[in-house]
Amino acid sequence: MLERSEPVRLGSYLAGRWQEGAGEGSLVHDAATGRPVARLGTSGIDMQAALRYGREVGSPALRALRIHQRALMMKEIGLKLLELKEEFYELSYATGATRSDGWVDIEGGIGTLLSYASLGRRELPNGHVIPDGKPEILSKDGSFIGQHVFTAMQGVAIHINAFNFPVWGMLEKLAPTWLAGMPAIVKPASQTAYLTERVVRRILEMGVLPEGALQLICGSTGDLLDHVTCQDVVTFTGSAATARKLRRTPAIIENSVRFTAEADSLNASILAPDAVPGTEEFDLYIKEVHREMTAKAGQKCTAIRRAILPAEHLDAVIEGLGARIEKTTIGDPSDKETRMGPLASMDQLADVRAAVRTLSGEADIVIGDPETCPVEGGAFMAPCVLVCKDPLTASVPHEVEAFGPVCTLMPYESLEDAIAIANRGSGSLVASIFTNDAENARTLGLGIARLHGRVMLGNRASAKTSTGHGSPLPQLVHGGPGRAGGGEELGGVRSVFHFMQRTALQGTPDLITAIAGKWMPGAARNTDGPHPFRKSLAELEIGDTIVTGSRVVTLEDIEHFAKFTGDTFYAHMDEEAAKRNPFFDGRVAHGYLIVSFAAGLFVQPDEGPVLANYGVDNLRFMAPVYPGNALQVQLTAKQIVERESEDYGEVRWDCTVTRDGGEVVAQYDVLTMVAKTWPRA
Amino acid sequence: MLERSEPVRLGSYLAGRWQEGAGEGSLVHDAATGRPVARLGTSGIDMQAALRYGREVGSPALRALRIHQRALMMKEIGLKLLELKEEFYELSYATGATRSDGWVDIEGGIGTLLSYASLGRRELPNGHVIPDGKPEILSKDGSFIGQHVFTAMQGVAIHINAFNFPVWGMLEKLAPTWLAGMPAIVKPASQTAYLTERVVRRILEMGVLPEGALQLICGSTGDLLDHVTCQDVVTFTGSAATARKLRRTPAIIENSVRFTAEADSLNASILAPDAVPGTEEFDLYIKEVHREMTAKAGQKCTAIRRAILPAEHLDAVIEGLGARIEKTTIGDPSDKETRMGPLASMDQLADVRAAVRTLSGEADIVIGDPETCPVEGGAFMAPCVLVCKDPLTASVPHEVEAFGPVCTLMPYESLEDAIAIANRGSGSLVASIFTNDAENARTLGLGIARLHGRVMLGNRASAKTSTGHGSPLPQLVHGGPGRAGGGEELGGVRSVFHFMQRTALQGTPDLITAIAGKWMPGAARNTDGPHPFRKSLAELEIGDTIVTGSRVVTLEDIEHFAKFTGDTFYAHMDEEAAKRNPFFDGRVAHGYLIVSFAAGLFVQPDEGPVLANYGVDNLRFMAPVYPGNALQVQLTAKQIVERESEDYGEVRWDCTVTRDGGEVVAQYDVLTMVAKTWPRA
Repeated sequence: MLERSEPVRLGSYLAGRWQEGAGEGSLVHDAATGRPVARLGTSGIDMQAALRYGREVGSPALRALRIHQRALMMKEIGLKLLELKEEFYELSYATGATRSDGWVDIEGGIGTLLSYASLGRRELPNGHVIPDGKPEILSKDGSFIGQHVFTAMQGVAIHINAFNFPVWGMLEKLAPTWLAGMPAIVKPASQTAYLTERVVRRILEMGVLPEGALQLICGSTGDLLDHVTCQDVVTFTGSAATARKLRRTPAIIENSVRFTAEADSLNASILAPDAVPGTEEFDLYIKEVHREMTAKAGQKCTAIRRAILPAEHLDAVIEGLGARIEKTTIGDPSDKETRMGPLASMDQLADVRAAVRTLSGEADIVIGDPETCPVEGGAFMAPCVLVCKDPLTASVPHEVEAFGPVCTLMPYESLEDAIAIANRGSGSLVASIFTNDAENARTLGLGIARLHGRVMLGNRASAKTSTGHGSPLPQLVHGGPGRAGGGEELGGVRSVFHFMQRTALQGTPDLITAIAGKWMPGAARNTDGPHPFRKSLAELEIGDTIVTGSRVVTLEDIEHFAKFTGDTFYAHMDEEAAKRNPFFDGRVAHGYLIVSFAAGLFVQPDEGPVLANYGVDNLRFMAPVYPGNALQVQLTAKQIVERESEDYGEVRWDCTVTRDGGEVVAQYDVLTMVAKTWPRA
Repeated sequence: MLERSEPVRLGSYLAGRWQEGAGEGSLVHDAATGRPVARLGTSGIDMQAALRYGREVGSPALRALRIHQRALMMKEIGLKLLELKEEFYELSYATGATRSDGWVDIEGGIGTLLSYASLGRRELPNGHVIPDGKPEILSKDGSFIGQHVFTAMQGVAIHINAFNFPVWGMLEKLAPTWLAGMPAIVKPASQTAYLTERVVRRILEMGVLPEGALQLICGSTGDLLDHVTCQDVVTFTGSAATARKLRRTPAIIENSVRFTAEADSLNASILAPDAVPGTEEFDLYIKEVHREMTAKAGQKCTAIRRAILPAEHLDAVIEGLGARIEKTTIGDPSDKETRMGPLASMDQLADVRAAVRTLSGEADIVIGDPETCPVEGGAFMAPCVLVCKDPLTASVPHEVEAFGPVCTLMPYESLEDAIAIANRGSGSLVASIFTNDAENARTLGLGIARLHGRVMLGNRASAKTSTGHGSPLPQLVHGGPGRAGGGEELGGVRSVFHFMQRTALQGTPDLITAIAGKWMPGAARNTDGPHPFRKSLAELEIGDTIVTGSRVVTLEDIEHFAKFTGDTFYAHMDEEAAKRNPFFDGRVAHGYLIVSFAAGLFVQPDEGPVLANYGVDNLRFMAPVYPGNALQVQLTAKQIVERESEDYGEVRWDCTVTRDGGEVVAQYDVLTMVAKTWPRA
């Protein structure tokens, strides 16, 4: 808890310097004690200057870095933030977060940044242009082709975040933004902005980020959104009502600005009929509903608001939840014994109480009294469980959200009803299903998928490893249709592309190769100079090619290979059976024989810069190889991925095997590790 | 040309029947003769009933079909429409389209439908759920994983189309909509709705489509858009101003409804400095600018509005364009000699004239007189070329579009200026670059990509095969940022997902397998019963597995394989050199030896339902295999794609090779063709 009497004045880091707004600004208070914590405001600050600074200083600096360099920068920031985490935990208590709540926010946020630092280097090329999908051959002779590419947009990403995750909420958006090469302006919710501000301050102090890559607004955004263009991106996390308001911003509509909303939704959790009391799934369900009610005092946009369960188990669920709620210690979030802290503010508490009163119109409170304070001095509220007896006709519990430790139980009679009830949320971030029955999982899962961004299945086999209903993960998309805002975040590299422009390039293979930085089928092959296996990464160029001599495949080769490997499949060994096969006119060479002979033809055997063949992609056998056919190979350097922190990189080779100097019989990518220099440094 | 005196009354096909609106409706006229062609209106028609009908009748019927069945349905419709094309050409003349304009619209539209019918079967699985991306392993022991899937949304796609492509505009949107399993309501622009209506009528008469899959509104959409939900999709093609208006529709904002706009934009074409007069690229440029001005009388949202060229070649370009324009016969579109027909209506003509007057404020007319009618009786206008001398400071030519045979020439001094001028369009559907220089292509291409949905490169090598600046293709995305509406259409299977919901599934591999219909790593492997190569497609199930015996790889095997294949790479042959390699402790087995021995282990050799191994995907060598290591294989049926019109299907097998009963040394997918029944029917 903050032990200071005077609230700190929070600055905004804009246009390259810390600035304070004019006047007193507004006050925010410690959630547990009500003590003033900070003062903030942006009155008089020039927001257009901040946009210009991001576009003119931050954007070129980030775009000058290669993608893996950006990733390494993120890794460095993440590791340094981890060292500073205790400072953030101390501030976090003032937001009402327990240590365990803070862990999700602070270490969860840093973990997401590190996760992107890693997947960016694993799954994206190390350049400035990212090819998307395969080349499309647009003319019969291959002289006109298409290739989609992603390039960085040259505006600013404006991230308007919610109060509940002041660290994670910022970092989960910064990670894909920076990886894409875009600078950001972060605007945290005022209530908990002091924690975000501290993290930003520490990041800037590291001196790792290029200037302009990160700006911060503590307070109102002023006229910022009136000046966005189609090269900017605006994201919002928070209430559905504010999302709608922002979506109507004239400049956003006028300029088709990308706007992504992630709004809290009326997320459901379904107890399947097989998960009867006494099963592990029943116990897991009770545990999860309770956890989602009490973690962060229920102030999570993914929290379970609607617990959908077989009518005959309603009493058992109330009993199970009641027992857990009774043992939930509420109090000072910095106290280790505390299981649930206060809401973020007295305003929040008033909002939640009002929402419960509205819910009471169509549901009955069975546990808890929202109007009584369990602990004095702060925004404390006891968990509250309601029961809506007729969830198929009631409307309020599917529309009104109490953003606190509140959940409504909804009994169902059939799987069909359970699906209908879940889908009455009109679009949610997440739903969970507790079942150990594959058929129930399938019926419920497919029944609700279309209205949910994420569906988590809980059962005994994942009891210990599940990350739970409420946790968005960097690898999976976070967002949902309708009420949930209709946006998508995270999802691994998917979200990087939210900050890039996809462009379809069309032209000759040579011109597309020049732009995409990847060799296109039909582009020039350079066969001059030494065998490309003799070239280090520093010497090798896209298009470098070895055209091999040819080798006739004999029936003896096929028989020998069959005997040696044990692969005596009838198509290779039995002329009559092979002829009966719809694809062959007689005995054919093994596919694995073709690629083995191909390697024998293209390999340069001497010790050299090529270190290893680590894989093969997209191998297709296009035509059969019969005894007597002569194989020949063209191997061309297609894509070069330099590793920033290794002394080698990856080279993807286009490998085309033809028979008798004509028809292509096999087409694939050969993947190799190649030393940056040779002899190695 | 329509040879009737009385205009036809166009119906709307809604809620399962043809309906006419109350009252007189509004009149539309033949573009060339001004004669009334049709009357249309929807006054009093119940639009909510149409939405319900689509959701309750069309949607379940389409979703009941497997994806390949939907594709075959589209193929049948496309082929039947081709047989009827002459009827459509006859009507098309009344829109002002010449035969060649009509070809783009009619055969281009049908071709797009057929193209999707084909790529749907080639690139999508034949089921109801489409897995997206790879499984994500979310726990160390693999008991909790994630997999994204796409499922059909259960609403209606509402397609609001432009007047200029009454057939293509409908079919290019219906193709991905139907493939995704969504019904559609098509609303053509009134001016040319009679052609769309005829095509819809013919499609419905075929009896191929499930009832409710296609509805048509000829006239106003009434209150239709007030009732859309997050399960519906709204697309719009037309002016940027109308796009903005629709985007503000309260129900679209309120329910986060997917809204895609494709708006006409100020598309640019750049003549690069290397393409001096006398080069083929210069001639191609003149030809393309002229073609884009005159095809469809310049009424294409992709038409070249801004021709950006080196200042020193301005006179040559004006001369070249003038010569071509002079030879452009304007007149009756049904006359074979006509090269350019009228605009679509007298209103359009008035709009274009007004736009040229506005452009004249910052540009000078150098060719043509927009105020004079070259042909009497219809909406005819001569091509008009303007020159904007200072395109870096002028604003009108980058903002105001004359949607007709009008183009503004913009001279530049440097590549940097050319890029800046192109990007002043604030987002376009397409730009083209004429160059035969890879460096110019790269500089200009990367300079403008971020503001363009498509960039076409024109040069001598693709002169005969290029599909041209103005033509969207089914394989490539169509759409652009900012002024162009910020949407994406087409792009192969990408657009199918615009009509599906992506959901991240999380749970145990077994439960995810049950929902996704694809075997997940860690899911149960069924090793009971016969070898899976003995099972036909009818008998085989996801998870069927062969666990093989083991085989020790000896140094003799490695030497023998090297000698036999010719692959004597040092890592296999030279102990000391292999040790110097950062990845190996000594001589290792060839990757191709590993996969060959693996096949020897897993293959069941007898003639049977497995017909061929047609490829391998995602092969990765995870750890080295040293002499003495014993290899063992687990091969599991991962995904089964049944072919609707073949007597075989495709089976993707998960192949895992381990050494000494533990560590995985190779992981890949083996792709086979398997007979539907065995013995074959």
